[in-house]
Amino acid sequence: MCDKIWCRSQNSVVQPLLTDLYQITMAYAYWKNGKMKDYAVFDLFFRKNPFHGEFTIFAGLEECLKFLDKFHYSNSDIEYLKSTMPASVEPEFFNFLQNTTAKDVTLYAIEEGSVVFPRVPLLRVEGPLIMVQLLETTLLNLINYASLMATNAARYRMVAGKAVSLLEFGLRRAQGPDGGLRASKYSYIGGFDGTSNVLAGKLFHIPVNGTHAHAYITSYTSFSDLQIKTLIHKHTGEQQDLLELSCQYRINIAADLGAMVSEASDGELAALVSYAIAFPDGFMALVDTYDVKSVEASAKQQANVTGRNLTNKLLTNGSNKSPRNGAKNSPIISDEPTWSPKGGLLRHGELGELFVRSGLLNFCAVALALNDLGYKAVGIRIDSGDLAYLSQVAREIFQRIAKRFELSWFAKLTIVASNDINEETIVSLNEQNHRIDCFGIGTHLVTCQKQPALGCVYKLVEINGQPRIKLSQEVGKVTMPGRKTAYRLYGMDGHALIDLLQRVDEEPPRVGEKVLCRHPFEESKRAYVIPTRVEFLHKMYWKDGQILQKLPTLVETRNRVQESLGTLRNDIKRNLNPTPYKVSVSDDLYNFIHDLWLQNAPIGELS
Amino acid sequence: MCDKIWCRSQNSVVQPLLTDLYQITMAYAYWKNGKMKDYAVFDLFFRKNPFHGEFTIFAGLEECLKFLDKFHYSNSDIEYLKSTMPASVEPEFFNFLQNTTAKDVTLYAIEEGSVVFPRVPLLRVEGPLIMVQLLETTLLNLINYASLMATNAARYRMVAGKAVSLLEFGLRRAQGPDGGLRASKYSYIGGFDGTSNVLAGKLFHIPVNGTHAHAYITSYTSFSDLQIKTLIHKHTGEQQDLLELSCQYRINIAADLGAMVSEASDGELAALVSYAIAFPDGFMALVDTYDVKSVEASAKQQANVTGRNLTNKLLTNGSNKSPRNGAKNSPIISDEPTWSPKGGLLRHGELGELFVRSGLLNFCAVALALNDLGYKAVGIRIDSGDLAYLSQVAREIFQRIAKRFELSWFAKLTIVASNDINEETIVSLNEQNHRIDCFGIGTHLVTCQKQPALGCVYKLVEINGQPRIKLSQEVGKVTMPGRKTAYRLYGMDGHALIDLLQRVDEEPPRVGEKVLCRHPFEESKRAYVIPTRVEFLHKMYWKDGQILQKLPTLVETRNRVQESLGTLRNDIKRNLNPTPYKVSVSDDLYNFIHDLWLQNAPIGELS
Repeated sequence: MCDKIWCRSQNSVVQPLLTDLYQITMAYAYWKNGKMKDYAVFDLFFRKNPFHGEFTIFAGLEECLKFLDKFHYSNSDIEYLKSTMPASVEPEFFNFLQNTTAKDVTLYAIEEGSVVFPRVPLLRVEGPLIMVQLLETTLLNLINYASLMATNAARYRMVAGKAVSLLEFGLRRAQGPDGGLRASKYSYIGGFDGTSNVLAGKLFHIPVNGTHAHAYITSYTSFSDLQIKTLIHKHTGEQQDLLELSCQYRINIAADLGAMVSEASDGELAALVSYAIAFPDGFMALVDTYDVKSVEASAKQQANVTGRNLTNKLLTNGSNKSPRNGAKNSPIISDEPTWSPKGGLLRHGELGELFVRSGLLNFCAVALALNDLGYKAVGIRIDSGDLAYLSQVAREIFQRIAKRFELSWFAKLTIVASNDINEETIVSLNEQNHRIDCFGIGTHLVTCQKQPALGCVYKLVEINGQPRIKLSQEVGKVTMPGRKTAYRLYGMDGHALIDLLQRVDEEPPRVGEKVLCRHPFEESKRAYVIPTRVEFLHKMYWKDGQILQKLPTLVETRNRVQESLGTLRNDIKRNLNPTPYKVSVSDDLYNFIHDLWLQNAPIGELS
Repeated sequence: MCDKIWCRSQNSVVQPLLTDLYQITMAYAYWKNGKMKDYAVFDLFFRKNPFHGEFTIFAGLEECLKFLDKFHYSNSDIEYLKSTMPASVEPEFFNFLQNTTAKDVTLYAIEEGSVVFPRVPLLRVEGPLIMVQLLETTLLNLINYASLMATNAARYRMVAGKAVSLLEFGLRRAQGPDGGLRASKYSYIGGFDGTSNVLAGKLFHIPVNGTHAHAYITSYTSFSDLQIKTLIHKHTGEQQDLLELSCQYRINIAADLGAMVSEASDGELAALVSYAIAFPDGFMALVDTYDVKSVEASAKQQANVTGRNLTNKLLTNGSNKSPRNGAKNSPIISDEPTWSPKGGLLRHGELGELFVRSGLLNFCAVALALNDLGYKAVGIRIDSGDLAYLSQVAREIFQRIAKRFELSWFAKLTIVASNDINEETIVSLNEQNHRIDCFGIGTHLVTCQKQPALGCVYKLVEINGQPRIKLSQEVGKVTMPGRKTAYRLYGMDGHALIDLLQRVDEEPPRVGEKVLCRHPFEESKRAYVIPTRVEFLHKMYWKDGQILQKLPTLVETRNRVQESLGTLRNDIKRNLNPTPYKVSVSDDLYNFIHDLWLQNAPIGELS
C-alpha cells in the first residue's frame, strides 16, 4: 500500500490530470496558435449563496495552493495524453506540457474561512493564458465542495448554538471516500467539534468520537455472554463485580424510572457492562436498541407540545422517591405525584415501550455501579424517536438520580442525539426545548442534501491588458471585467456594512472618508459609506512558485470562520428570510463595466 | 508526488482507518470481553430505491473486494490509534489489530451491475464478529455512492434513449476530487459513454471528451489575434488560408441563416479558425458565446410549443435559397417562404439575438472551409437557452447547408447540449422533439441532486449460529434475521418476476416447480410462482483471503447493467409512477422471522 496517500494533507489524486479534457485541448489550440505568451486574468466566484442563505464560508484555498505547488505532469500523464489526443497533435506540445509548472501564475485570494458573498472574486488568478486555463477545473473542484461543506457546517453551528457539541458522523453516506474525508475536514472548519472518521482524525488532527452501534448491543443476549464481569476500582485497585453491582442498582432504581426490571433487556445490560469494563472512564451508551413499539406516539399525543407535562407525570411516579424529590428549585419535576401506575394519564403497560424502561434503566444502573468504583460515566446516545421529548425524559431521570444519590454530575450527563438530523430538525428541537448536549450529524451534513453543489465559476476578465466581459440574457450572469480588488467596509458598531469591488489601480477606500458604493447593475442604487475599518480582502498568496502567506492551521481557520461570522449582522445570518448583504462597485468600476457593456452589445435594428 | 495514487484502481485513502471510531472502540470492547471467536453474519442492504424509482443498480463491489484484499493497519495507523484511544486500552489489543486481516471473512454478494431491490442483501458478510464489524463503515461508503451514481446514470440513460450519447461533465461540481473520479467511473458503468475527467480516463480507461470553453472564444477579439491562419489540405498537403476561406463562406451562407455578416463576431470566428487549425479532424465548437439578449424568449412565445412552426419560418427565409430547398422529403423545412425579414412574424433585429447569427454562422463557415481542405467537422455544443428549440434551429440549418452544398454528412453534424441538465430536462426535451445527439451532464448527475445519498445499512442477523432480529416501530425497519440467500425468479416472457429470500439451508427453487412466495410482513400476501429460470443472486466472492470470482472489466459491468435492466418490465423502470418490483420470502423464512419477532417483542400489560 502506498504510504503517502495524502501528500502534505492533500489526497494525491489532486494533480494536473484531475481536470476536464477541454482544458488540455484548449491548451493545445493556444499553443498551436502561438499564444504561449498571452497573459490572462480569471476570477473565481459564485453567483448565489447556498441553502437559501445570504452568506458563504470560503474554504479550499490551502488545497489550491498545494495543487499549484506540485503542479507537474508525470511521464505517465504525458503518455496517457499522447494516447488520448488526436494523432495530429504535435509532439512538441507534450514537451511543453511536461515542462509546465505554476511558477508563472500569480494568485490573489480571500483568506480561507472568511465569510464571502456572491460576485466577489474568491480567487483572482493571473498568468500565462494556457496555464491559468489548465488550473480551472481543479480549482473549482477544490473550492466548490469545501466551501459548500464549511458553509453547511457553519449554518448547523449557528442554529445549534455555542453550548451544544456537533459531531460529523457522515462517512458511510458521503460521496466516496474522499467525500467523507473532506466532509470531516470542512465541517470541522465550519464549526463542528469532531468527527467519527478515524482517518480524518489521523490526517487532519481533528478530534474523533464514537462509542458503539446497535449491533454491539444485540450481539449480547444474556449475562452468560459476559466473559469478564469485574472491574478494578479506579483508586483502590480492588476487583469488583460490575455486573452484580449493576443488577443491584437496576433493582434499586427501577421504580424511579417507572420501569420494571423484568421488562428490561438482560442482553442489553450485559452489553453495557462489557462496554463499561472496556471504557470505564468513557462510558457512553446507545440506549434505544429496545425501543420497539408504537405506543410512544400515542403517549405523546396526550402530552402538551413540549412534552413537559407528560414528562412531569412520568417522572413524579415511583415509590422510591428520594428525600430530595420535593426540592424547590427543580424547574420541571412537580412535587405532586399526579400520576400513579394504575390510574393516571398513562397506564402501566404503555410506559414499557419507551426506551426508558430498558436502555435508560440499564445505563443508569451501570453508571451508578461505575460510580461506586470511582468512574464517572459520560452519557447516552439516542438514535431514534422524538428526540426533544426523549431527551427531556432522559434529562429528568438523570436529575432525579442525581438528587437521590447526591451525585450532582449525574444531572449533567451528556445526551447525544443522532438520527437523520438536519438544520430544520435542530431549529424545531430548539423550539421544543430539547435537552440534548451533542448532535451527531451524518447524511444531511456531508452530502449537503439541501443543495449538494455550490456553483463557483471561473471567468476570463482580462487578456493581454484588455478587459473581457461576458454578456448574458440574465443580468446576474454578466461578468465584471478587468482586474479588480475587493474591500470590506465596516460600520460604527463593528459590523461589516458592504463589500466594495474596485479596479486594481484605484486608490483604496480609507477609514473615515466617504466612499460612493454603487450597485453593479442598477444605476440608481448608490450609497455613501464612511468606513470605520477597511479590510483588504485580496491578498497575494502565490507568486514566482512560492506560497507567500503563512498557511493557518485547521484550528486557526476554524476560529477565522467564527470571527468572520461575528462581523455579520444577525439578520443576514438568520435561517428564515435573511437579509442580503450588499456587494457594490466603485463609481469608476461601474462606469468601466457599463461602457464596455455598451461597446460589446450589438444595437438591434427595427424597421 | 506519490505514484501509486490509485493502487489497483482504487484510491489509496480506502484503508482500514477510513471508518467510524466506534467500530474500533467496539472492537476493543469485544476483544476485552474475550469475544475474539464470536462468529457473526451481517447483511448489507438498502430499504428504499433512490430517486422515487423502483430499482437500483448495485455497484462498488470490486472496490470492496480490493479493500478486503489489502486490509491491514500500518504502523502509523497503530501509533495514531494508541494516541487517540483512552490510555486504559491494553497494549495487546493493538498487537491484535496489527495482525488483523480479512482472511477469516467470507463475503457473498450480488454481481456488480445487477438491478437490485430493497431488503435483498447486496452483501452477506460472515466472519469473526470483530472483523466484520470493522468492515462496516468502509463497505457502506464504497457501496452507497457507487450504487447511487450508477443508478442515477442508468436513469439518465433510460430517459435519453439509446441513440443519444451521454457524457459526464461534473468534475468541477463534484463532492471533492474523488467524488469526481467515482462519478466518472460509476456513471460510465450506469450507461454513460464517456467523461470530461482526464484522470478518470487514465485510471479507468473510460473514453474522455471535450472541446473548449467560452473563455477560449472570448480570448480572441479579432482576426489579428490569429498567429496562424493556414492549414494543410488533408490529402494534397497544400497550405491554404483557412481564415480567408472561412470568411468567404461566411459571406456566402449568411443569408441562408437569416444572418448578417456584420453582426457576427470576428473574435469568435478567429477563435473557431484557430481551434480548427489545432483539431482539423475533431472540430467541435461551442456556439453560444455571443447569445446575449432577451429577445429569444419573446420570439419563442410566438412560436408553438415545439418551436417547429417558428423554426420553419426562420429557416425558409433568405435569398440564397439553394435549388434543393424545395425537396420533398424534408420533414420540417416548409417549401413556403412564410417569413421575410421585413414583414413576417419576427422582425429582422430580433433574429440577431439568436446565437445562429454569430456562433452558428461562424461554425458553418469554418466547417465548410475545413471541408474544402478535406476535413469533416464534428459538430457544435450549445450551453445555454432553450435547448430543444435551439437544437431544432441548428439542425435545420445543417440540413439546409447539407442540401445546398450537397454534403449529406453536414445534416448529421453532432449537436451537444450541456446546460444544467437533469432527468426531467431530458424528459421535457424529448417531448419537444429536440434534435440533440449528445448530452453533457454535470452537477445533477454527479451530486445526485435529487437524492444525494443512498441509505444502505449493515445489520447483524446472526451471531454464533443464533439469529438476531432488530425490531422497530416501523415495520419497514425490522431486519430479517439469520443467514439468507436470494434468488431471482423469471417468468415465461423472460422478465424477472420476483426476488425470493430463503434461509440458506432451504432447497433452492427449481425451474418449472411451484414456489410459494410470501410478503415478508403481510400475512395474507402470497403468490405461487413457477419460474422458467432461477438466478442465484448470491455468489461467494471472498473466502480464505482470496477473491474467488473473476472480476469483470468496467465495460463488462457496464454491459451487465443494460442486460440486467433488460430483464425488468418497463412499468417498473418508468420515470413516472413506476410499479414496485416484488421482493418475497419463502414460507419457511416467513415463519422463522415471525416466530422470532414474537419471541423478542415483549407482551404489554393492560389492567
